Amino acid sequence: MPILNIALIEGRSNEQKEALISEVTDACVRALGVKPETVRILLQDIATQDFGVAGESVRVKRERQA
Amino acid sequence: MPILNIALIEGRSNEQKEALISEVTDACVRALGVKPETVRILLQDIATQDFGVAGESVRVKRERQA
Amino acid sequence: MPILNIALIEGRSNEQKEALISEVTDACVRALGVKPETVRILLQDIATQDFGVAGESVRVKRERQA
Amino acid sequence: MPILNIALIEGRSNEQKEALISEVTDACVRALGVKPETVRILLQDIATQDFGVAGESVRVKRERQA
Amino acid sequence: MPILNIALIEGRSNEQKEALISEVTDACVRALGVKPETVRILLQDIATQDFGVAGESVRVKRERQA
Amino acid sequence: MPILNIALIEGRSNEQKEALISEVTDACVRALGVKPETVRILLQDIATQDFGVAGESVRVKRERQA
Repeated sequence: MPILNIALIEGRSNEQKEALISEVTDACVRALGVKPETVRILLQDIATQDFGVAGESVRVKRERQA
Repeated sequence: MPILNIALIEGRSNEQKEALISEVTDACVRALGVKPETVRILLQDIATQDFGVAGESVRVKRERQA
Repeated sequence: MPILNIALIEGRSNEQKEALISEVTDACVRALGVKPETVRILLQDIATQDFGVAGESVRVKRERQA
Repeated sequence: MPILNIALIEGRSNEQKEALISEVTDACVRALGVKPETVRILLQDIATQDFGVAGESVRVKRERQA
Repeated sequence: MPILNIALIEGRSNEQKEALISEVTDACVRALGVKPETVRILLQDIATQDFGVAGESVRVKRERQA
Repeated sequence: MPILNIALIEGRSNEQKEALISEVTDACVRALGVKPETVRILLQDIATQDFGVAGESVRVKRERQA
């Protein structure tokens, strides 16, 4: 009964999210031998100002690189 | 000093959330013998496209069943 | 389909954990009107050196107060 | 830069965990078009007394079914 | 390679969030001796109706105190 | 009332953890203007076989590099 939380930088389409849910569920089934209906996945959209890497947000990093 | 994260499919009213916070805090007090003021609860609204069960999102499942 | 993570300072007995799972599930059922079998709860034991409040760990706080 | 937390009932071998990390990373690469080195995964072993479904722990459920 | 999730009551400005990411990353570097580029931080804005303390939400607490 | 979860690869001493709790709390106080006693931090030790980067665990990566 795996439970997955997946944090993503915001901006993914519903189609990408659907593919992610499907592919990751299949990956759990193959690796762990669990039934697909036992796999629960929560996606979490993270805004660029809320995702920090190396001491700055992705928002600031992208503005600097623009 | 229990800390709870509760992920819910979006759409709950403030009244339901208030009841949930109150009832779950009481449950912790009864089961653990802690003081209510030490219990912290974070509610997380999950959009239907962000909640995956059995390899598809709740959004797709509901559209298919509509 | 609520999913709950509950972080607790280590040391709770299996009986207390069982009571917590039972009471918190009932609380979700009452407040949200969901079926009990849709409620999933993960308990997380936190060691006293891993729980920080007010800038120090519970381990150090307890040693100071002993 | 997806970050995944995966909660599993304890008892998986290192080989199963390695397969899970590899398969889930590939799934993220295919669904999101990200580079594998940006994917970070945290596995969390949950003891059977710490995983509650339908108001009781997996520990109690298994004992009842034994 | 520390990964931090920081839950905050909503309402912080981008400048406060940027300062938080910068200061917390520096704190990890000093305390753990890691390189800043290995530190990843996710900020999570929690609405006042979604943050419960002592059995009620911060929304209700603030209305009562207003 | 910030709540922080910090995932670390296992092996940190209690002294490093204490320094981390102290430094990160101070960082929150400086960046957000909150009182130290409102800051709660949970440290989570992640075993090397449970931390995946780029499709493999840190356990396997370290064995390969040894």
